[in-house]
Amino acid sequence: MTRISLVRYDPEKVESLEPGGVDQVFPLPEGPGVTWLHVRGLQDRETPERIGEELCLHPLVMEDVLSSGQRPKAEVYEDYIFLVLKIVGLEGKGRRLLLEQVSLVLGRNYLVTFQEGNSTVLDPLRKRIEEGGNKIRKSGADYLAYAVMDLVVDEYFNLLEGFDEEIEKLEDRVVERPGQDVVRDLHRLRRRLILLRKSVWPLREELASLVREEHELIAGETVPYLRDLYDHVIRVIETLETMREMVSGLLDVYLSSVSNRMNEIMKVLTIMATIFIPLTFISGVYGMNFKNMPELHWPWAYPAVWLLFFAIAVFMLLFFRRKKWI
Amino acid sequence: MTRISLVRYDPEKVESLEPGGVDQVFPLPEGPGVTWLHVRGLQDRETPERIGEELCLHPLVMEDVLSSGQRPKAEVYEDYIFLVLKIVGLEGKGRRLLLEQVSLVLGRNYLVTFQEGNSTVLDPLRKRIEEGGNKIRKSGADYLAYAVMDLVVDEYFNLLEGFDEEIEKLEDRVVERPGQDVVRDLHRLRRRLILLRKSVWPLREELASLVREEHELIAGETVPYLRDLYDHVIRVIETLETMREMVSGLLDVYLSSVSNRMNEIMKVLTIMATIFIPLTFISGVYGMNFKNMPELHWPWAYPAVWLLFFAIAVFMLLFFRRKKWI
Amino acid sequence: MTRISLVRYDPEKVESLEPGGVDQVFPLPEGPGVTWLHVRGLQDRETPERIGEELCLHPLVMEDVLSSGQRPKAEVYEDYIFLVLKIVGLEGKGRRLLLEQVSLVLGRNYLVTFQEGNSTVLDPLRKRIEEGGNKIRKSGADYLAYAVMDLVVDEYFNLLEGFDEEIEKLEDRVVERPGQDVVRDLHRLRRRLILLRKSVWPLREELASLVREEHELIAGETVPYLRDLYDHVIRVIETLETMREMVSGLLDVYLSSVSNRMNEIMKVLTIMATIFIPLTFISGVYGMNFKNMPELHWPWAYPAVWLLFFAIAVFMLLFFRRKKWI
Amino acid sequence: MTRISLVRYDPEKVESLEPGGVDQVFPLPEGPGVTWLHVRGLQDRETPERIGEELCLHPLVMEDVLSSGQRPKAEVYEDYIFLVLKIVGLEGKGRRLLLEQVSLVLGRNYLVTFQEGNSTVLDPLRKRIEEGGNKIRKSGADYLAYAVMDLVVDEYFNLLEGFDEEIEKLEDRVVERPGQDVVRDLHRLRRRLILLRKSVWPLREELASLVREEHELIAGETVPYLRDLYDHVIRVIETLETMREMVSGLLDVYLSSVSNRMNEIMKVLTIMATIFIPLTFISGVYGMNFKNMPELHWPWAYPAVWLLFFAIAVFMLLFFRRKKWI
Amino acid sequence: MTRISLVRYDPEKVESLEPGGVDQVFPLPEGPGVTWLHVRGLQDRETPERIGEELCLHPLVMEDVLSSGQRPKAEVYEDYIFLVLKIVGLEGKGRRLLLEQVSLVLGRNYLVTFQEGNSTVLDPLRKRIEEGGNKIRKSGADYLAYAVMDLVVDEYFNLLEGFDEEIEKLEDRVVERPGQDVVRDLHRLRRRLILLRKSVWPLREELASLVREEHELIAGETVPYLRDLYDHVIRVIETLETMREMVSGLLDVYLSSVSNRMNEIMKVLTIMATIFIPLTFISGVYGMNFKNMPELHWPWAYPAVWLLFFAIAVFMLLFFRRKKWI
Repeated sequence: MTRISLVRYDPEKVESLEPGGVDQVFPLPEGPGVTWLHVRGLQDRETPERIGEELCLHPLVMEDVLSSGQRPKAEVYEDYIFLVLKIVGLEGKGRRLLLEQVSLVLGRNYLVTFQEGNSTVLDPLRKRIEEGGNKIRKSGADYLAYAVMDLVVDEYFNLLEGFDEEIEKLEDRVVERPGQDVVRDLHRLRRRLILLRKSVWPLREELASLVREEHELIAGETVPYLRDLYDHVIRVIETLETMREMVSGLLDVYLSSVSNRMNEIMKVLTIMATIFIPLTFISGVYGMNFKNMPELHWPWAYPAVWLLFFAIAVFMLLFFRRKKWI
Repeated sequence: MTRISLVRYDPEKVESLEPGGVDQVFPLPEGPGVTWLHVRGLQDRETPERIGEELCLHPLVMEDVLSSGQRPKAEVYEDYIFLVLKIVGLEGKGRRLLLEQVSLVLGRNYLVTFQEGNSTVLDPLRKRIEEGGNKIRKSGADYLAYAVMDLVVDEYFNLLEGFDEEIEKLEDRVVERPGQDVVRDLHRLRRRLILLRKSVWPLREELASLVREEHELIAGETVPYLRDLYDHVIRVIETLETMREMVSGLLDVYLSSVSNRMNEIMKVLTIMATIFIPLTFISGVYGMNFKNMPELHWPWAYPAVWLLFFAIAVFMLLFFRRKKWI
Repeated sequence: MTRISLVRYDPEKVESLEPGGVDQVFPLPEGPGVTWLHVRGLQDRETPERIGEELCLHPLVMEDVLSSGQRPKAEVYEDYIFLVLKIVGLEGKGRRLLLEQVSLVLGRNYLVTFQEGNSTVLDPLRKRIEEGGNKIRKSGADYLAYAVMDLVVDEYFNLLEGFDEEIEKLEDRVVERPGQDVVRDLHRLRRRLILLRKSVWPLREELASLVREEHELIAGETVPYLRDLYDHVIRVIETLETMREMVSGLLDVYLSSVSNRMNEIMKVLTIMATIFIPLTFISGVYGMNFKNMPELHWPWAYPAVWLLFFAIAVFMLLFFRRKKWI
Repeated sequence: MTRISLVRYDPEKVESLEPGGVDQVFPLPEGPGVTWLHVRGLQDRETPERIGEELCLHPLVMEDVLSSGQRPKAEVYEDYIFLVLKIVGLEGKGRRLLLEQVSLVLGRNYLVTFQEGNSTVLDPLRKRIEEGGNKIRKSGADYLAYAVMDLVVDEYFNLLEGFDEEIEKLEDRVVERPGQDVVRDLHRLRRRLILLRKSVWPLREELASLVREEHELIAGETVPYLRDLYDHVIRVIETLETMREMVSGLLDVYLSSVSNRMNEIMKVLTIMATIFIPLTFISGVYGMNFKNMPELHWPWAYPAVWLLFFAIAVFMLLFFRRKKWI
Repeated sequence: MTRISLVRYDPEKVESLEPGGVDQVFPLPEGPGVTWLHVRGLQDRETPERIGEELCLHPLVMEDVLSSGQRPKAEVYEDYIFLVLKIVGLEGKGRRLLLEQVSLVLGRNYLVTFQEGNSTVLDPLRKRIEEGGNKIRKSGADYLAYAVMDLVVDEYFNLLEGFDEEIEKLEDRVVERPGQDVVRDLHRLRRRLILLRKSVWPLREELASLVREEHELIAGETVPYLRDLYDHVIRVIETLETMREMVSGLLDVYLSSVSNRMNEIMKVLTIMATIFIPLTFISGVYGMNFKNMPELHWPWAYPAVWLLFFAIAVFMLLFFRRKKWI
């Protein structure tokens, strides 16, 4: 179900509301304070559409808000800036990557955030506003939008840390006990890296465009913060690239581990077979039932055959040693 | 056979025609309404050539309309904009990628579309025009051109969804029952991804050039729609790239699956052979017919040999356990 | 031997000559018509050098004309534009790629073409000039240069079609009968793709520079034709890239085919060996000549051993079935 | 523990201090000399934060100074330039790459350096200042910042030399005794190359931006030195790329070494088995106990069987020779 | 030991000198002629440093001249242009790539070349100057610098020709007798290609910057020659890229050759083992010593067993034929 929450604040005071419907929200109050309207859960299309109408948003903006596969982007309209972000998370035992879309509409003195699902990534923000005594309360809606984006990007770092641990564990497993499950885990990790990169990559352009061009709605003193955020995104991207190379490298190590195991298995088989095959042949020869086999009657023949056996075995072992197989 | 259909509309009224020949179509009516001339099937070169003459199209434009291997592009001429697109589809059991060329000539108050084959991708458009009450009827020929392009690009998303399902199925098959058919399916999927990318990639430039430069024929309010379409194309391209990486990854998983199977097969062979080869040798030894083999006459020799057999087998099994083969 | 042919034409009349020497050619006639001097075979350096002197070509231009390893390029000099192209062909049974250099010197009312070898790619052009009634006769030397380049680029498409067929055949062979010869053919195809790309890639820049910059020697109405040619070159390049990816993909399919075959071979060996090795061991045991082997004297021992044989074999087969090897 | 050291110098005199606290340092003296404040060890956040306040640094700058995962970057503020660098080192037996962050704040007549850890890379600088008679003493704070960066970049070259030796050793090992440990070492080397590249790559932009744009704080005569440093960084990057290709190449060589070994092992097994398997069969045949086996009674049968054995063995050996296996 | 040679020339006369020391060289004569000072061997740092002082070269320039690992670059100073090049050569049996640094200082009427080692690549230049009657004598120092660079780049082409031959030989070896030595040679060739590319790649920028920007020291008529040289460098780079792809392709062919050989070896083993294993088992069965084996006493049992042997062998052969193994 779609839930709306509303926070109005200026440096002096804060006011929090859980309005029952859209009607209680509009019209947004004029004046120096900032209004943050946070919409969570978009299954019910009516509420966001009503908000869109009240704010006179372009139909394409509303379409983007309501369809979840958008790529992160920044679009500047006359009265507002429209931003799309992706909150990331991991789901279940297979640790599949979960993407949740957040759309921001940044107006002169308001920020509307549409969050697709129920993740709690943005919850700390409200507390920070209510506690006060920090930069958010003293700044405008543009800084609030920055704070939202900052929380989203911080989640990426949390995710990357988890990936880093996974890679370290995989590094050990690849060498110590390479098996099909290692490949599956490598593949899953790689898939998550690819999907995450797909979500982060466009963020780069998005922030670059906000930093580069001057917007009336973004105060000059907020720009360094956005530039800092841009730097964070670059770091995420570079770390992702590095991780992808690591994972590729691990796959190579895995394949060579498997080849090495195969080599060892074949060596054991070959050594055993090569030593005993001629011996077995000889024992077979003297198991033949020909009438006329003079050796069979020699008194020292049997010990002599044992000597022959040993000689062959020793010769073979020396041969393998020279080949450095044992 | 080449078929022509004609739709004339303005905000108030619509008029649909299936003219028998080109003569009934020209001259196009002047005035505020929009004329959409849709030509389907280009085997018969005469009709499109006549249309080209009537509209004074550049000979190179006509050449491009009539030869099917063109890449998507946008060319601006003095009185019209010429656009080439590719409708995609899948054909038959092998699900080969099928490309059908659509050429658009966008003039001041008309749009001519030349469709190479018989796909029904553009059919919903006519209905939407006839039903009215939407943006198409209120807008000019430029928005109609956008609507055509939008339908074509939507087809790409349908295709991608199908690919996504295929990839998920292949992910399971690669691990559970890797076989030559999995590789063939991976290869076919990859081929389709490559070919699709070849058709979509130039669309990016095409739309970017339409959005970036101001054209007299494209109204300012249509530009956001084209920009949105551009975003969709970028999403298609990014998804294609992601899919290609996935497919490459699956091939790696497949190869490692095969290597693992080989390892297991070789392990079974090696374990069996290595245990029994010395035993068989010993049994061969006591099958020799030498006169003078004292062991044969010892009363406990036979059970002693069995003990030896067991001792060797147990020793071998312990050896394999230490190597972690079993 | 170097052969010269000369064609002079204007919209009304054509004049063809096979002059015996350079002296008969110069000075080129002034006036509205176009002179095309075609030099074929550059083993004899004297003729081209004489022509270079008569036309006051830069020594570096003459050096480029006479040395065959040049890359395609366009160089603008004060009085003429110098263009280098590569005619492609396939030679012999191995279908090696053959590159033949064509240098164009485009002056105000003349075009000189220096063709390194004897390919007949440019022959249709002379006929088209002589027949008349087409755009060449009505246009200047710049259009003639375009026509030459168009013929050269068309050859690339012919080549690509041949490659396409080869790839399709290789796709079948890779799956049905993978062998060393398939790899060799894949490698040869790849080599030709690489070499062809090396010749086509610079053409892109060459044409782009001709289209982008305004040259006095290139009429405005010829530019759309050059732009069209540029588009063709892009198509050739994109198709080459696609083909290279296909060939790489085929190599992967090949390698997995080979691995699969290996797996199957090893499976057969392992199944046979694993079933019979214990049986042979048991038969060996009862072939031993110990005095005291009570089993040998039991009346049902022999059929019991056969039962054991069957039991072991069936057990093994069930084991392999559970492993899904058979 | 955080330690502060202070050096004040001008062409004539130097003054070194180990102030107990921040209070003893500020305010920085005005005038023509240069003040270098070097802060080492950032576990205790208070000291750097005090310094930040005294110098009126932007809160984001202080955040970057105190969090260690920053990427190298240059940020220009009104009164100072903020630079982030990474000192590299190798740690322990596994020779893991160690990164230590150094942040520079370059003001009009001062340089503050915050060094995360305890590496001694910057120590020579102090000596050079104290000795005098070199360019540092005669130049401003900008040249001092260059000198710091130069020392950091020189460390990269030291590291690369070590890598170069490792690669040469690995080249020998890969061919002579390929084993799992070679792959592990290759992988570790590759990981270090990847991580190092991640730290060096952004340095490129950082220096390029310093060289390209004119800053009031950077004297014109320092620019050639920065350009030289930029060249060094490019060299580091190119060498890293080359090394990565080498390591990839070595992995290919390794894999082919392993394949070759496998081939050789299999050849030995196949030759031995193929020669003796038919011989063993024949000896088995004449070990059968059928009553009615006429050969057993022939007087020359036994030598004839030995002849047969030799004939088969020779035939097999010739067969293998023809296949070029021996 | 460092050797200096001096050539002074103008269109009319040449003067060659082998001065004993730097003192005899300076001051360089004013006037219309060109002075070429060639310094060979830089082990002794004093001579080049003296020259640097006399010409007032920037300390960074002298540092670059004297340290051998510089990358090719062009740096424009007020009175001179500083260029770094790499002469290439092959050394010893392993044909390791040898790089020798040449630094050029191009002043108004002089050129100083510092050559690191003893290669004779630049020797023909002196002869050409002394012989006269060519463009060098009539041109300024800028053309002389071009001539030096041209000789250096020509060496690259010589090297590439050698590589081309090596690749052709390797192509044959890879298919005919793939072995570990082929991989080693492929690896060595690849290493040389990588190193050469590292030296040539920056040359591209270097020449591009000389061609693009107008320098007072480079006459307009020398620019086409530099542009030509730039073209040559591009050709070298493109050929290197092509060769690298070829070598990668050859490695793939090699790996598949090895796999194919393995397949063949395993086939031989499997066929032999699979045919004889059941036969040996049967012969073992009838070698058992059970009292009660009725078959042993049947008169046609022995020939019947031989029939069974043949039947099994033929069945197996048919089975292998159906699998297309033989």
